[in-house]
Amino acid sequence: MVEALKIGLLGLGTVGTATAEILQSPERRNPVLNDITIAKVGVSNLEKPRQVQFPEGVLTTDLEGIVNDPNIDVIIELIGGLEPARSLILQAIAKGKHIVTANKAVISRYGEEIYHAAEQAGVYVFIEAAVGGGIPVIRPLQQALSVNRIQSILGIINGTTNFILTKMGAEGSDFAEVLTEAQELGYAEADPSADVDGYDAADKITILATLAFEEQVNLEDVSCEGIRQVSAVDIKYAKQLGFEIKLLAIAQRDETGLQVRVHPTLVPKDHPLASIDGVNNAILVEGDPLGQVMFYGPGAGGGATASAVVSDLMNIAAMVKTTASVNPLMKIPQHPAGQLVPIQELVTRFYARIICVDRPGVIGNLGTCFGKHNVSLESIVQIDFNHGIAEVVVVTHNVKEENFRKALAEIPQLEAIDQIQIPSVLRVLRENL
Amino acid sequence: MVEALKIGLLGLGTVGTATAEILQSPERRNPVLNDITIAKVGVSNLEKPRQVQFPEGVLTTDLEGIVNDPNIDVIIELIGGLEPARSLILQAIAKGKHIVTANKAVISRYGEEIYHAAEQAGVYVFIEAAVGGGIPVIRPLQQALSVNRIQSILGIINGTTNFILTKMGAEGSDFAEVLTEAQELGYAEADPSADVDGYDAADKITILATLAFEEQVNLEDVSCEGIRQVSAVDIKYAKQLGFEIKLLAIAQRDETGLQVRVHPTLVPKDHPLASIDGVNNAILVEGDPLGQVMFYGPGAGGGATASAVVSDLMNIAAMVKTTASVNPLMKIPQHPAGQLVPIQELVTRFYARIICVDRPGVIGNLGTCFGKHNVSLESIVQIDFNHGIAEVVVVTHNVKEENFRKALAEIPQLEAIDQIQIPSVLRVLRENL
Repeated sequence: MVEALKIGLLGLGTVGTATAEILQSPERRNPVLNDITIAKVGVSNLEKPRQVQFPEGVLTTDLEGIVNDPNIDVIIELIGGLEPARSLILQAIAKGKHIVTANKAVISRYGEEIYHAAEQAGVYVFIEAAVGGGIPVIRPLQQALSVNRIQSILGIINGTTNFILTKMGAEGSDFAEVLTEAQELGYAEADPSADVDGYDAADKITILATLAFEEQVNLEDVSCEGIRQVSAVDIKYAKQLGFEIKLLAIAQRDETGLQVRVHPTLVPKDHPLASIDGVNNAILVEGDPLGQVMFYGPGAGGGATASAVVSDLMNIAAMVKTTASVNPLMKIPQHPAGQLVPIQELVTRFYARIICVDRPGVIGNLGTCFGKHNVSLESIVQIDFNHGIAEVVVVTHNVKEENFRKALAEIPQLEAIDQIQIPSVLRVLRENL
Repeated sequence: MVEALKIGLLGLGTVGTATAEILQSPERRNPVLNDITIAKVGVSNLEKPRQVQFPEGVLTTDLEGIVNDPNIDVIIELIGGLEPARSLILQAIAKGKHIVTANKAVISRYGEEIYHAAEQAGVYVFIEAAVGGGIPVIRPLQQALSVNRIQSILGIINGTTNFILTKMGAEGSDFAEVLTEAQELGYAEADPSADVDGYDAADKITILATLAFEEQVNLEDVSCEGIRQVSAVDIKYAKQLGFEIKLLAIAQRDETGLQVRVHPTLVPKDHPLASIDGVNNAILVEGDPLGQVMFYGPGAGGGATASAVVSDLMNIAAMVKTTASVNPLMKIPQHPAGQLVPIQELVTRFYARIICVDRPGVIGNLGTCFGKHNVSLESIVQIDFNHGIAEVVVVTHNVKEENFRKALAEIPQLEAIDQIQIPSVLRVLRENL
């Protein structure tokens, strides 16, 4: 009989507790879990009441002690944040321990350093829980999908913003109102910036893009816009035009190179991502010769995320028993840092809502201005009219971002157009995706 | 440098050709593919023109020679059908070769025999391509999802029938008409029975259920109904009631045991499977603590299926290099054969379309008859009325199949109801799923 794999668990919040619960009740689960025991659990407060119980001496506040404990084989890092998480991971690797982490912030910023250290030490770093909660997506990207030439990854990978956008659309409510509601329900943090400004999604698409394309993507090169500027009226008009507005994280390779970005996007209603509602996540991967596959499920929550954490742990347990060296499909490939295509070079479609004084020739003047900058329009519609003020919605065909921005900048100078405002400019999923 | 893994490919149809194409162009794919070479390709006709070219001596009609060739490490079986596929697989295993197969018919019937032989020989049998084409679903079920207690698998796993049902719904056309169209487009075979009678879906759900639950499911115990009896008018009425009709393959465990079945099913429009259209497949897995995850993509086609075949092959290549013994997460677990819960014991909802002479009291009489057999109705609606004939649609709450069938059997004997016909009886996705 092989000796049980000994785990050091750092953090006992929602995910840590759910992880311990799975490991403490292995019946009707994979038998590989029988050979795993929790040796130490690092917490910040020993006195706090806990939903799970451990034998005397397992709980400790000495996290450094855990990562340096020679009896421990695997560290599960669930404390989140940048430090001390990064240092603890690196110390554990240096001591020859395998790592399982759900920490997207650390991996998106220090992934290269951590993978390199793991490579040197001959240990695994598993990160399935860092993206998409319980949805298996990291391992399929590393394994099954990697026989394809990946063309794009499109993800709804932040549940908070998807909940907010879904609710705004269903109720016609505005952003601020729904955010308050989401905070009350526990779907959004007191400081919502990481979610609503797109930073969480940017962390995750950086991780996915680095796995799927052969270059190390730098988080700071990822273009990132959140959903604060999306209004209920934009969602309404988008629906009338046949679109849903989603916060998409996009990594896409074409002849111009690799582009990675996060922004609210108008998605055609018949697109598989258009019907992903509420706190759910979905990741759509397109490759050659595979075509499009999509992974859908709960992108957060203790149980779902713990499912991913424990599946990583189980993989390590199975491999430690059977492998003589590190399985190349189970390690994160390291690539040189790449140069992303800047957002001005992006070719996509746009939606813009324009408000101005209504007078004959407004639509013609706008159309001429776009045409001058090579912006081909799909539609230009006067949607609303009040007290002499017109509201015009423009949807373009594929256009270079730079050209579209130049046309927009020129509109306020048009002679025939008065009191102009452009309250919303949103991207539309480009035509050939 | 490790010696290249040598492949014997049996069959060079659509999937075999696409498999060879991936292996012959490894650039921008996983580098593990660089160490794989195609040593032999078994075909039935050497003279046939081929889209892929091989060096002199690779193509052969001697399939037995390939599975017995001591230079070959892995056999990819893509000839389909039961024999000689089964015998060739068993011979190859006896010679210590690993197996990759897309053959759902062989695996659903002889999986136990084949897995047992592989266990004895210490080789892998990989079957990702047998279910869901290019969608990664077998490996997630074996690995990531297996830390959960799986409660149900619901799949749209036959593209032909999904195409037919989607088209019937969009155009209001009847089954026979759309089938002819599907045959002309190459989406349905000249003999369409395996698809339209549900046998292909039954093969696949047998494989998935055996992986997800700890019992060997016997194909002959799987209850199977196809889509021949689904009419355009049922699809129309279902839509009016808020449902889409899909051919679902269902494996579901509850307190009564495990039930595995294939039948057309009314799916509520807001259910993730309701919007899966055309030839696409989707598999929805529900487990504890994970919740629901769904895998979606092309369920057939040469390129998509070849993606799954090559990913299996790549996993074998990676493990052969690094493992000392068989990774327990990579082998198909063997379990004793289980007893499925018979269909009469099923608890589900029903839809029935009833035609009879219209007279006062018809709906009351029907309602009373259902009530007598403990069938609780959600709705009973007279949808249509022509020349003194009423068309009544009944939708039940959860009910035991046996009780519902008894009530149906009694309806023609009701005194107040004349000239009764019950042209359609369909199951509705049950309430707590």
